[in-house]
Amino acid sequence: MGETPVVAWEIGRDEYEARVGRVRQILRERELDGLVLFHSVRLTYLTGFFHQRTERPMALVVPLDGPLGALVPRLEREHVAAYPAIARVRDYPEYPTGGTKHPMAHLRDLLTDLGLGGKRLGYDNDGYHDINSYDGPALSAIHDGPTAPARDIVDDLRTVKSEAELRLMRASATWGNLAHRLMHDRLAPGRSEIEVSLEASLEASRMLLAALGPTYRATGFVAQPATAVVQAGANTALPHPLSRGGGLRRGDVLVTFGDADVGGYHTELERTMLLGEPTPAFVRHFELMLQLQQAGFDALRPGRRLADAEADVARAFRDLGVADLQRHHTGHGLGLEGHEAPFIDLGDERVIREGMVFSVEPGLYVPGLAGFRHSDTVVVTAGGVERLTYYPRDLDNLVVPA
Amino acid sequence: MGETPVVAWEIGRDEYEARVGRVRQILRERELDGLVLFHSVRLTYLTGFFHQRTERPMALVVPLDGPLGALVPRLEREHVAAYPAIARVRDYPEYPTGGTKHPMAHLRDLLTDLGLGGKRLGYDNDGYHDINSYDGPALSAIHDGPTAPARDIVDDLRTVKSEAELRLMRASATWGNLAHRLMHDRLAPGRSEIEVSLEASLEASRMLLAALGPTYRATGFVAQPATAVVQAGANTALPHPLSRGGGLRRGDVLVTFGDADVGGYHTELERTMLLGEPTPAFVRHFELMLQLQQAGFDALRPGRRLADAEADVARAFRDLGVADLQRHHTGHGLGLEGHEAPFIDLGDERVIREGMVFSVEPGLYVPGLAGFRHSDTVVVTAGGVERLTYYPRDLDNLVVPA
Repeated sequence: MGETPVVAWEIGRDEYEARVGRVRQILRERELDGLVLFHSVRLTYLTGFFHQRTERPMALVVPLDGPLGALVPRLEREHVAAYPAIARVRDYPEYPTGGTKHPMAHLRDLLTDLGLGGKRLGYDNDGYHDINSYDGPALSAIHDGPTAPARDIVDDLRTVKSEAELRLMRASATWGNLAHRLMHDRLAPGRSEIEVSLEASLEASRMLLAALGPTYRATGFVAQPATAVVQAGANTALPHPLSRGGGLRRGDVLVTFGDADVGGYHTELERTMLLGEPTPAFVRHFELMLQLQQAGFDALRPGRRLADAEADVARAFRDLGVADLQRHHTGHGLGLEGHEAPFIDLGDERVIREGMVFSVEPGLYVPGLAGFRHSDTVVVTAGGVERLTYYPRDLDNLVVPA
Repeated sequence: MGETPVVAWEIGRDEYEARVGRVRQILRERELDGLVLFHSVRLTYLTGFFHQRTERPMALVVPLDGPLGALVPRLEREHVAAYPAIARVRDYPEYPTGGTKHPMAHLRDLLTDLGLGGKRLGYDNDGYHDINSYDGPALSAIHDGPTAPARDIVDDLRTVKSEAELRLMRASATWGNLAHRLMHDRLAPGRSEIEVSLEASLEASRMLLAALGPTYRATGFVAQPATAVVQAGANTALPHPLSRGGGLRRGDVLVTFGDADVGGYHTELERTMLLGEPTPAFVRHFELMLQLQQAGFDALRPGRRLADAEADVARAFRDLGVADLQRHHTGHGLGLEGHEAPFIDLGDERVIREGMVFSVEPGLYVPGLAGFRHSDTVVVTAGGVERLTYYPRDLDNLVVPA
């Protein structure tokens, strides 16, 4: 008898194999002989290999057949060896060279090893990223054969989530909800936003670790399994503010955030809250925001185009007389990244499909007053959407007496 | 009488103006009419504008004369308006379009507004980054004039730190030291690495906020002012591990990390520690590591080439008979990023200059035993280096009784 498998908070090996299989099918359709991926998220998506991105380039090479290849710095050799699907590893001593040879020259050797010298290659980027002062030649400059942009191959696969991915995202929503609740419970005049955020993140992370135990796997060097953030006052009028620690004040409008990393997957929970007694202007804008978010939920159905869904929400803004208070589109995809394709945007012509996951977060930004934005993470179902994040949305539950 | 200025934990406006002035001087030397920067760190370095990087492209345009220009999404318009040096802002509705026009088409309009249509432009990247599924045309595809890579212009300026930058980095070292100390005090068998790290980070951040008060400015959305991390056991044999929360065990070798964000600047403090009684093998490798780090400190003097400094450390590895246990070079520059150019590497021919800041962290990695690595942040002085990080380095102070 074999050993009984234990539940794990990660994607199974079969699913990684299926993802690689789909990529190969698309490569054949496009008459490409292989795909070179430089972005760490795409490498992770196809192999489960999580790692730190630095100036030291890494690349995954997917040939049409046979083992996957990877370029890694020497210091990752033992790490990547734990991923048997990546059977052809070429490591280089260091960046910029550790001697005389640039890492991209080692990538050329790897391509030759894999029988891809002179062949037709797709890529996500024509070379490694501008990160931590990295500099180096393009893929098209070190490869003798033709090359073509193919970033969309993996990114399109990522847009529709599998059951396994949704299981991780549902867990993310649960622990993000806890982080948000613990943050909510700590809100009071005089408390620092940063301190309240860090306290709730720590306590929720502690509980996540205790609950998931050794089956929980961190995916980064600085691991914070669960995260809560609160932004206050004038800061909320900026859709993407920087945190401040100056202290909460009675009357502050708050825009909050909750998330957890489960197997590398994320969700997004945001709420507009208030410390103290709501003014009529606050109540009016809050209720308008709720109506706009409902318009967003209602607009998402499989088979429609994303641009049409966004047009519905834009119409709701106009019908409610607040088109001038809109600052951004309705939402974005998410999963391994907090923002990823597709986008609920007038410029995104893609068709909505079952299993796609989106943030739904139309926001109202009132100069001199505050920003009003709830964000919920939804998965597209046969009949519309299901909300993965379930924190209360109504005003009564989001006003903190002060 | 004017108002008396209050000490601030950030770079002053004069210094930003001087940085832009230096860039313009180099543009003239290279006969370029302007510089287009897509990377957020370079934008911050020239203006002090911190912001969240997403799929929505941003760019800073530095013409030879006149006001700076910026491309930003609509949702950053009010945010960027707080930076008067960026006087020509072009905002676009959304990504991918928010309507019909890609953000890069708006960049083309901005270049025309700035009188740069058809002119010769340098760039850090030929277009915006592959981040959060962004996709779009290259700068060279939307601009009618000639374009040339010029990533090095700003990155070279960044390699030599000013007095103002060093003041922020010294403060970073102080608060990183506190985070590390509070983490050290919590180490005990059975404690989770992630929990100990988060507790110490929270407590040090709390003290930083209380000490620096309203003059402290967070530079991100999820703000953790001070950070400590501990990696344990077999994980330390990987130079870049992912955190685990499984629990500390008696006999674990630990590799730790401390840092704080002060005005966007960072330092790096890492220590090899031990939970329990040192074995002879542990003591031997620990002492070898200390000797190698001293060789690193001694190798850095202004006027030498970095490749020669690295050759000295490589020689020390060979002289000590442990060349096979080396996995990476001696160190890297740091400042606004945790890793940045230049590198203490056999392939970096740059000359060491006063004011350069490096991590010094030659590591020994012993398969089946552990990794041994201290990292200290040093600034190059007239006579050699000064250590900005000052946590004890000796074995007695780094063994935790258990």
